Amino acid sequence: MLLYERVAATLRAQITRGTLRAGERLPSVRQLAQGHGVSTATAVQTYLQLEREGLAVARPRSGFFVRAATPAAPAARLPRRRAPGEVDNPALRSVMELLARSDLLPLHSATPAPDLLPRAALTGSLSRCLRRTSAAALDYAPPQGHFALRRLLAQRYAQVGAEVSAEEIVLTGGAMEAINLSLRAVTSPGDVVIVETPTYHGILQAVAAMRLKVLEVPTRPGQGIDVARLEQLLQQTAVRAAVLVPNFNNPLGSLTCDADKRALVESCDRHGTVIIEDDIYGDLAWSGQRPSPLRRWDDGSTVISCGSFSKVLAPGLRLGWVAGGQWSEVLARAKFFTTVGGNSLTQLAIADYLQRHDLERHLRRLRRTLADNGQRLHDAIARYWPAETRVSEPQGGLSLWVELPGGADSRVLFEQALNRGIGTSPGVLFSSHGDYVDCLRLSCGLVWDERMDHAMRELGKMAAASSNCPSL
Amino acid sequence: MLLYERVAATLRAQITRGTLRAGERLPSVRQLAQGHGVSTATAVQTYLQLEREGLAVARPRSGFFVRAATPAAPAARLPRRRAPGEVDNPALRSVMELLARSDLLPLHSATPAPDLLPRAALTGSLSRCLRRTSAAALDYAPPQGHFALRRLLAQRYAQVGAEVSAEEIVLTGGAMEAINLSLRAVTSPGDVVIVETPTYHGILQAVAAMRLKVLEVPTRPGQGIDVARLEQLLQQTAVRAAVLVPNFNNPLGSLTCDADKRALVESCDRHGTVIIEDDIYGDLAWSGQRPSPLRRWDDGSTVISCGSFSKVLAPGLRLGWVAGGQWSEVLARAKFFTTVGGNSLTQLAIADYLQRHDLERHLRRLRRTLADNGQRLHDAIARYWPAETRVSEPQGGLSLWVELPGGADSRVLFEQALNRGIGTSPGVLFSSHGDYVDCLRLSCGLVWDERMDHAMRELGKMAAASSNCPSL
Repeated sequence: MLLYERVAATLRAQITRGTLRAGERLPSVRQLAQGHGVSTATAVQTYLQLEREGLAVARPRSGFFVRAATPAAPAARLPRRRAPGEVDNPALRSVMELLARSDLLPLHSATPAPDLLPRAALTGSLSRCLRRTSAAALDYAPPQGHFALRRLLAQRYAQVGAEVSAEEIVLTGGAMEAINLSLRAVTSPGDVVIVETPTYHGILQAVAAMRLKVLEVPTRPGQGIDVARLEQLLQQTAVRAAVLVPNFNNPLGSLTCDADKRALVESCDRHGTVIIEDDIYGDLAWSGQRPSPLRRWDDGSTVISCGSFSKVLAPGLRLGWVAGGQWSEVLARAKFFTTVGGNSLTQLAIADYLQRHDLERHLRRLRRTLADNGQRLHDAIARYWPAETRVSEPQGGLSLWVELPGGADSRVLFEQALNRGIGTSPGVLFSSHGDYVDCLRLSCGLVWDERMDHAMRELGKMAAASSNCPSL
Repeated sequence: MLLYERVAATLRAQITRGTLRAGERLPSVRQLAQGHGVSTATAVQTYLQLEREGLAVARPRSGFFVRAATPAAPAARLPRRRAPGEVDNPALRSVMELLARSDLLPLHSATPAPDLLPRAALTGSLSRCLRRTSAAALDYAPPQGHFALRRLLAQRYAQVGAEVSAEEIVLTGGAMEAINLSLRAVTSPGDVVIVETPTYHGILQAVAAMRLKVLEVPTRPGQGIDVARLEQLLQQTAVRAAVLVPNFNNPLGSLTCDADKRALVESCDRHGTVIIEDDIYGDLAWSGQRPSPLRRWDDGSTVISCGSFSKVLAPGLRLGWVAGGQWSEVLARAKFFTTVGGNSLTQLAIADYLQRHDLERHLRRLRRTLADNGQRLHDAIARYWPAETRVSEPQGGLSLWVELPGGADSRVLFEQALNRGIGTSPGVLFSSHGDYVDCLRLSCGLVWDERMDHAMRELGKMAAASSNCPSL
């Protein structure tokens, strides 16, 4: 037996016996070498061996950890309500009110922590615009927004294979305004609109406020939108629009593959259904491979594509956009009479940032952190939560979707966690009629620290109590 | 005859003969003294005498001018359409598109020129927030907005006699977003809503987009909203809401007196009609006396009060608010699902500006300039436009309302002016069915210079041609 194999055997035994538990940090290479009286080369070889066996996992700049048994992913579910109907979900109001506290550990908030964003560079761009073009920065922007930024956005669309002109882009106060304007442009009260299930609660509230009826199409962990089911719904019902999140949807983080995207656009085109695409998470592929928006398979006659800098640069600057295709003039007019126009300073400063800085470089770092956080949350759940807990394996985005075992009610966990200063998003928020009572969403956007580890342990105990399963 | 009386007589004769024309600059005091071989004290006495006679007018830092014969004000008109109906005014689209040019002399734009706003102080506040609180400035604001600014706004309401709590204020992207959110909160499609006639076209477009029916209540030059007519309309029709601009409405600049305001609130309260008050021009009283908003006579059960910093600090920062009274929670929710929240940096920076700078001092200067511009436009019209042209005498705000003689069509003037690089707002923009074909709105917000004088002369010629009246 080689030296490194002998050291590996002792670690393997500790892991098997539970002396070293899933997710725990293994000794550093130096500690291992000193402890076993071997060279650092041998210590490194030991860890590479354990990694090959699937027992250890390396984390950049953190060292080696005991690999957790990966919890299974939740299965896709059909919505409880299958006919078109109005959104009827009291949690959308009550839960949101409870979360309006600034003292929570914000595991409920699917947004990157301020420290993960390029604050210094953005501050520089804002200051530069104030110094050099203060008159323009403080004066009205055109309703569509400043052309410089719209041109840069059109270039970014080209990079992911979508033909979008700068002229058809309207800048908005984030993606939610883009979605609201789009719904306004294409629907009338009473129209039927398809949304994914589960989906972001803001979309459900916007649809409800416009007095639209919803039909829910399942989106599947790991696979994205169920295109066959979508086609079936379109055949049965006249659907005016579909608000879809094909890239790393919120809460699942799943990705719809290119073949399905193309089929989906064709399907909607055939049935005269307008797609309002929310591509706000498209830049956050944990693999680093930026997927295309649906607009790649359309010329602007079926797909309205919405995006935002909120999840990659600065949520508080409220800068999003809509590539409106044939609706771009209607959208620009709606932008005018709802808000006159957007914030000039922000538009000019983000254009400046994009021209002076390498957004891709920042995105690479951000994606790695999010993926790393996702793994840490996975590990913590494997370590602290009930054994049968299921967890999504996101391909990107900012959140993890967790399914509690034993028919537990995540609203109970939500309340208990709130009492301990921990925010979670109960599953009932993510459907039109309060489905997913046993699920919850956790944010991957926080900076991992002791407090996070502690919170995950606390949540695990609560989950065990509420599901009558022993915590691990 | 005293010496100054003799000099005054020669000037009087020149004015009467037309050698010196209305609006023209009179010789400086020194020139007059030298020219007539009298002391400067005598020259000053001469001008004071002519001022007493109403023949000359002093302008701060500019000297004395020949006073123009003040054109008469336009009379109030009843709307052509008296029954509730949908907004049907194609000009709202076509004209707005033509005005989307950045190369025009913006006499169409009722907003203060950038040079009239406190750019350095605002830039300072923005830079300070970026330096000191960049994390908060770039992160999400609460849906209602940062409390610091809401508290300062509540204090400002208290100063004008209105009891508004910081808690009920929701910050918005300008007054138009405030009005849109308010309409959303209180109306359903098909409801009847009262608007003034003439009124700001943005309000008409917002009402149209919500599929509401409008009833128009006349607002009168110099007197404001016709309260008796309003009461009559409320008795005849079930009216859900009224969007009113009691302080220096756009385009007329007229002020509704306190007695009428109180009657108006009582009337709406009695009939269950919600008032959405647009108080965006309230700080721009040309007399300096800031009138109260309607909310002063209400406890938040009938009046929703909207305001903005767009017309006094910086249009491009898009910062307005709504004091929502009993609707404040509904409004905060609507703010969340339409835009998630407002721009954090802007909210924090304007709070900083209000704490460090004397807004009242800036407003005093701005009001004087606007009043002075109003007088100059008046003079220019008296001097260059057809004799029967009528002009509003605004008590505040940012615009002048002009009525052309001889049934002229202001759309013709609009097109001709556009060809010469001058923007005007044709009267048809300001009603639900294209009334006021013979009227137009001019901005008082530009910095007066040679180009302005030239433009007013050009417009006068076009007005004369289109009304078949000789220009003066």
